Formats: sequence, C-alpha cells, structure tokens
Amino acid sequence: MSHNLQLNPEGKLKHFLTIDGLDKALLTEILDTAESFAEMSGHHVKKVPLLRGKTIVNLFFENSTRTRTTFELAAKRLSADVISMNIATSATSKGESLLDTIRNLEAMFVDMFVVRHGTSGAAHFIAEHTAPHISVINAGDGRHSHPTQAMLDMFTIRQFKPNFSTLRVAIIGDILHSRVARSQILALNTLGAAEVRVIAPKTLLPAHVETLGVTVCHNLTEGLKDIDVIIMLRLQKERMTSALLPSESEYFKCFGLTPEKLEIAKPDAIVMHPGPINRGVEIDTRVADGPQSVILRQVSNGIAIRMAVMSMAMQTQGAA
Amino acid sequence: MSHNLQLNPEGKLKHFLTIDGLDKALLTEILDTAESFAEMSGHHVKKVPLLRGKTIVNLFFENSTRTRTTFELAAKRLSADVISMNIATSATSKGESLLDTIRNLEAMFVDMFVVRHGTSGAAHFIAEHTAPHISVINAGDGRHSHPTQAMLDMFTIRQFKPNFSTLRVAIIGDILHSRVARSQILALNTLGAAEVRVIAPKTLLPAHVETLGVTVCHNLTEGLKDIDVIIMLRLQKERMTSALLPSESEYFKCFGLTPEKLEIAKPDAIVMHPGPINRGVEIDTRVADGPQSVILRQVSNGIAIRMAVMSMAMQTQGAA
Amino acid sequence: MSHNLQLNPEGKLKHFLTIDGLDKALLTEILDTAESFAEMSGHHVKKVPLLRGKTIVNLFFENSTRTRTTFELAAKRLSADVISMNIATSATSKGESLLDTIRNLEAMFVDMFVVRHGTSGAAHFIAEHTAPHISVINAGDGRHSHPTQAMLDMFTIRQFKPNFSTLRVAIIGDILHSRVARSQILALNTLGAAEVRVIAPKTLLPAHVETLGVTVCHNLTEGLKDIDVIIMLRLQKERMTSALLPSESEYFKCFGLTPEKLEIAKPDAIVMHPGPINRGVEIDTRVADGPQSVILRQVSNGIAIRMAVMSMAMQTQGAA
Repeated sequence: MSHNLQLNPEGKLKHFLTIDGLDKALLTEILDTAESFAEMSGHHVKKVPLLRGKTIVNLFFENSTRTRTTFELAAKRLSADVISMNIATSATSKGESLLDTIRNLEAMFVDMFVVRHGTSGAAHFIAEHTAPHISVINAGDGRHSHPTQAMLDMFTIRQFKPNFSTLRVAIIGDILHSRVARSQILALNTLGAAEVRVIAPKTLLPAHVETLGVTVCHNLTEGLKDIDVIIMLRLQKERMTSALLPSESEYFKCFGLTPEKLEIAKPDAIVMHPGPINRGVEIDTRVADGPQSVILRQVSNGIAIRMAVMSMAMQTQGAA
Repeated sequence: MSHNLQLNPEGKLKHFLTIDGLDKALLTEILDTAESFAEMSGHHVKKVPLLRGKTIVNLFFENSTRTRTTFELAAKRLSADVISMNIATSATSKGESLLDTIRNLEAMFVDMFVVRHGTSGAAHFIAEHTAPHISVINAGDGRHSHPTQAMLDMFTIRQFKPNFSTLRVAIIGDILHSRVARSQILALNTLGAAEVRVIAPKTLLPAHVETLGVTVCHNLTEGLKDIDVIIMLRLQKERMTSALLPSESEYFKCFGLTPEKLEIAKPDAIVMHPGPINRGVEIDTRVADGPQSVILRQVSNGIAIRMAVMSMAMQTQGAA
Repeated sequence: MSHNLQLNPEGKLKHFLTIDGLDKALLTEILDTAESFAEMSGHHVKKVPLLRGKTIVNLFFENSTRTRTTFELAAKRLSADVISMNIATSATSKGESLLDTIRNLEAMFVDMFVVRHGTSGAAHFIAEHTAPHISVINAGDGRHSHPTQAMLDMFTIRQFKPNFSTLRVAIIGDILHSRVARSQILALNTLGAAEVRVIAPKTLLPAHVETLGVTVCHNLTEGLKDIDVIIMLRLQKERMTSALLPSESEYFKCFGLTPEKLEIAKPDAIVMHPGPINRGVEIDTRVADGPQSVILRQVSNGIAIRMAVMSMAMQTQGAA
C-alpha cells in the first residue's frame, strides 16, 4: 500500500486516506484551507458553490451517525449532492462484491467516495481500484486510520496553541484499538510537536509503541506533568468484558481525567476528546464541561476540516 | 416549564413547543403566514429561498414517516438543507446522553431542531438547554403537545368557517392519550371558538377534562347536535388490548362516525382527522371519502403551516 | 389495465409503466432525449434546472439500493427535490392502506412517484388512482415490467449497434421470473429487431413464450450462433432451492457465459447484464470484465434514461 497513492503527480491531495506520507506543508495547507471555511462569522456557516454539480457518496459499511452527519453537512455546505448508503443493508447483501459495488457507483458518474469500514485498509483498497477521476476520503478504517479526525484535532490545537514546536501532547487511553490515536501521533510528529506522550495501561498499548515516535507512560499522575494538550480517547465498553481491563470504576480511578488530575498539567492545558464521551469512565463530567475543554470546538472544526479536504481533493480532478 | 420560553423578548415566535401561552394575535399571525405559502397556484407550491443556507435537523426519537416527510418537504420548499436523524438507531445507542447529542449537533452549526419524542416535555427540555441561536419545533411529544398539527387544523377550519366565534367544534375519540386533542382544545379556545365539545367514553377522557375549557359528552348522537366542525381522533389499536375498550366493532358502533351520525351535525359541518385513519374503526369509509371530509386538505395545509412556523422562528435568529 | 393510461391525450408520455402499448416513435423519442443528457462531456454530468421546484417521491416497497440510487441521482441532476420512502417500514405498518398513503403524499403537492413493488401491476394501480397532475414511473413491479431497465438496455445497444433491423439478440437465463426480460422483448420487437432469441432451460421459460415474439432455444452453444447482442439475466439463487434447477455449477456448465461460448456469437457481439452479476453462476468473470462487456456502460446509461423519462413525463404536467 503506497502512501503516495493519495497525491497526484503534482503532489496535490487526490485522496485522503492516512496521515502517513503527507508532509508538513500539505498538512498545513489542509489547516489553512479549513481556516478559510471556519472564518465565517458567528453561527452562520455560509454555503459556498465550490462543489455544485458534484456527487459525493457516503459509503458507510460501519454505522456512525455522527461522522456521517458531519461529512453530509460539509458536502451540502459545499453545494454538492450527497447520497448516503448504508452498505451493510444494501447491494452487498445480494452477494455483490465490494469492487462490483464500486464499479457500479463509478459508472453513475459520482465524484467522491467517503468510506467508513471496519477493516483496516478498506479506503486504500477502494482508492487503488477506483476510476482515476474519483477521490476517496477515509472516514475511518478498522484500527488503521481516521485522518479527518486527526486533522480536526490539529486544527483545534492550532487555534489555542499556534506553535507546535513547543507543544507537549498527551494521548490517554486505549491506544491499542484506536485508529484516531494512530492518526494523531503521525500528524503531531509531522507538524513537529516537541513531545507526543501516550499514557495507558500496558494492555491497551500496541507492542513496540515507541517506534511510532512517542514517549510512553503508564501512570496518569506522572504523565500529565508539563503537558499542553490532553487528548482523551473513548473507552470502548467491550474492552471491559474482554479481560483487558478490570472494571470501569477501576479504569476511571487510574486513567480517568478528573479536575484534580487536570491540575497536574500546565495551567492553560486544553482537554480534547473525539467523542462520543463516556462521562465518568474516561473523563469526569466537570472536566468534559469545564473551561479547559475544547471538545465541542473539535466538533465544529470537523465541518471546516471536512470541507477543506473535500474541496482540495476535488480540485485535483481538473476543471470542476 | 415556562411557556414564555417560546417567545423572544419582543414577543416573537422563537420556538414552537406548545399552543399554551400563545395569544390569539400570534396564532393568527401563524395562520396568516401559512396563507401566503398556501396561496401558490394550483399544484405548484413554489420554492422560496427564505431559509437558503440554513440547516434543519429532524430529530425523530419516535418513528413517523408522515410527519417527518411533511417537515422535510416544508424545509426543502424553504430551500433549507435538511438532515434527518432516527435517533433510536444512532448516537444514543452508543450511550451518549440526549444533551450530548444536542451539544454536538449545535456545534455543527445547525439552525433548527424539529423534535419528535415519546416523552412529554422533550422538546421543551431541548429548547431550554440548546444554544440561544437555535430554534426548536415540537413535532409531537408524548401525550403533551403537537402544536403544528393543531395549527394546520385551525388553518383548515378557517378556510371553511372563517369566524371562530360562532363555531361549535366536537373532538371525538381517545382524548386521554391524544397530544393532538390537547393542542386543538388550547388553540380553539385561544381563537375564541363558541364551544369545544369532547365526545368519548369515560375511559378515554382525562380526569377533570372540563378544566381544559370543554364541554363533555359520552354519547355521539347527542354530542353531534349543532356541531360545525367534527374532529375525529385516531384510535390506537393498542388501547383495545389494555382493557380500556371492549372491541373495535363495539367502539365503532358507539363512537364511529357513519353517514347517519354525520347527519345529526349541521348540514355544512366539516369532518377532520389527523391521520392515519382507521377505516371502519373510528370513521366509516363513506364519511372519510365523502363530500364533507376535509382530511386531505389538512395534509396539504400541513406543509404551509410548517413552512410558516419554520420561517417565523428562523426570523427571530437575526440576520439570516 | 389499459396501456394507454401512460399517454396523455396528445400521445405524450405521462406515466412510464410498461413498454407495452408504446410505439417505435415514442421509444425512439426516449432514446433521443436520453442522448442529450448522456452527451455531457467526460465524467461531468452537468446538472440541469429542468425540474427545479418539483418533488419526486421514491416509493420503494421492495428494497433496491442500486435502482433507488440511480433514480435519486437522476432526479437530483434534474434539480428536483427527492424524498425516499422505504414503505415496508413506514406508514403502512400503521395499517394505512396503499391508497391512503398515496392520497396523503398527493396532498403534500408532490409531482412524481417512482414506484418499486413486489406485486405485478402495482405501478399501474397507483397511476390509475393518483391525482391527474402526478406522474408515475415504474421502477419494477413483480414479474411484470421494468421499463427503465429495458430502455437503458436499448440505449446501450443503439450506442454500439445503431441499426436494430439487422440485429439478432439473445436473452439468456431465467426468463420465467424476469420482469427485465419481458420488458426487453417488448422493446426489441417494437424497435424492429431482426430476431429476439431466448435461451434457457425449459423450467425457466414461461408457457407459450413464443407468443411474446421470440424464438426459443434450450442450448447455449446452438443459441449463440449469429448473435449480435447477448443479454445475460441474473440467476436468483432462491431458484436453486426450489427444485427448478439442479445446482449452480450445473447451471453454469450449461448456461453460463464463458469466453469459449462467447466465441460462438458474432465477433463484435456485445455482452449485457442488468446487474448485480453473479460471477461464476451465469457469467464468467473474464467475460463480465472483458472487452465485449458493456455492463458498466449500461449502469451509466441508466442515469441518462431515467433523466429522460422523468423530464418527459413531467413536461406533460403543463407549465413547470
């Protein structure tokens, strides 16, 4: 799987599949483009005609109302037509292969696939096999990658802490199963963060996690020292039953972010979470709703980032 | 729960949650606004650009294809973007609370929630807790209120009987469980109807129903005398099994509207029903499809009323 | 059931329910209209404002993501508003009759129903009973008819073989259960094909199939001689279990289209399939993806044909 797949010969973004292989200049271009969409005054995100006449297909093999909604809103605000397909309940149930589904949609003159799939590499696979004029955006594939989530996180960080080179960022929780964490680590390192620290019990860390370019800590109290940005991960409840963890309350006691724990970090540290949050499991309600939380800002920024990525990828298709 | 919640400081409609607390002038303004949308010639409801660039979210916690469709059509004819979410099958199933779902949607820069929920007060709750720039329209909450249905009924009545002050209106059927009936009674009294009469078996009437400002009758033949407007309610079949009623055929014999019964009312009485109708249960097919029936006119008027309420509420958001 | 139902008094297309009763001139008009939509350069199907302000309701009583998607795309590219209703899970589950559902949607000022139903004649029934200003498009009814599929097939054939009068066309597979085959046979005969040959085991042919205007063959090797156009039908797997057929592999051996069998037909024969294909059941992968296959072209043409039929039917509604 070549990461260059996502760039056209001029080095412009053609697909957005993973942070891997994208350089600082390109990530910064995404952030700057998103800024132009986010700069709209107050609550009025203006509708722009950039993708009028274009057709975007949401191919969701995994159900995710929240992510699908943000992509749908972003597409509509770019004036594109959107078709949302829940594939679990459609053509493939007639025994049609994924590739045949893709070929058929291509033949209907669609311009972009937004793909969510439970299998790592699904979006890459589609990008490799789809027609040359079609762009693919990865909206989450297995444990592999969730690049738009990582970029909206970078965008949010930059709004509060413009200089990545001095930043110490802690990512806390279930790193092992998290495509979000993988993409965040790559993006933070590419943007030149001073330190990316992962804080988790050993059972929730991948083997050789240090090779990803992170420092490792198994103790939240220690780990939060000198931290500027705290990223909490969602704890999937099913991990509890699989013996990876003792119990919710035990987890919260050790790795839950409480107001007391938060005081250990820098006084102006911001708290992030990709949502949906489990109140009282990985994060205390007072922190989630407190003054240092930027969780809802992340959601808002998700629209701008998706508008940015969609419009950039579509521009490499030639005359719109 | 303050009913003033739905008015902005200038007394303009900001949310539309209940008829309760709205005065005759405001209800009349809604009817007059709807008239401007309904006046479009023949079958061609023209599309107007009033809400272009606005995002309306249909939050349906209770499934209702018919109501959702009318709101979606009304929104599209106002040129808004519409996102329909069936919440039973989405985020809240990941254990997210209602408030977190609302907060997240707010953060996506939506402008209006259309809420349908099985619990009384749900739309109020959302209106109380949502961001100040967002309007909430109640599309039915528990047994409490269904104000757009009541207003489309008032609109339909006014088309045939312009003078409310001389009108005698009978509401027939399951008053006890009907949010529609509650809203109709409030609207009719506010608009100054001469009499609102409820006709039902005792088991299908709320305790102290007279305090709502109605006269009570347990006999259909007696109750239909001098009536100008007959509003039949849908009989929920599940009431049968709950021992509130003997049987469908027994109910039809006593409270079903037949051509013979209809003759007791005034000769120019109109027959209404919020739909979907149970033919042969609460209403005879000959009456439902007969010349005095205005049931389908009610459906048509539902689009105009929803366009009116949506555009009025959105205007209080300031510059569009 | 009168086939004239689909024409207005001037002989223009008002509904599109079946090929039956339409003459060569009208079928050719559909093909020519589709050509104007298909002629858009490259991958950019331009959006046209022909149906702006019109509301099209997809009434799918049978689930079909593929067909629904093509109709939805066609409608959006004509700038119509589209409401998609999966009726199995909606109003009729409240015990509302089909006619009441139709009456209610009519009252909401919709302009067109696209109907898919498991019962033969459903689209006719709706067209007979709907309001005069509404057009009905049959998107497949039981074993009866699938006229837009047949017309996109004719359109595809014409792109490769412009002269129908010299064409020999073979339709291969489960003719008995296929609404597609019925519509194709009618269309090919109306357009003056030299020969329509059906090739199938006796158990998958209707009684007296010759009366449809076809020649019959039970042997694929014999049947493919002199053939210009090969239309494969999808084999419904459920036929296997119903004792109509011995086994998948046996069927493929006798009636599956392999590269070897394909050589029997004319060297420039084209291979068609309405999709979704069962690779290795009715068609070999090398044929499906081979140079003579025009299967994906059919999918593309489906958009243009549906745009053509929708816009033609809507024009008979008077001033748009």
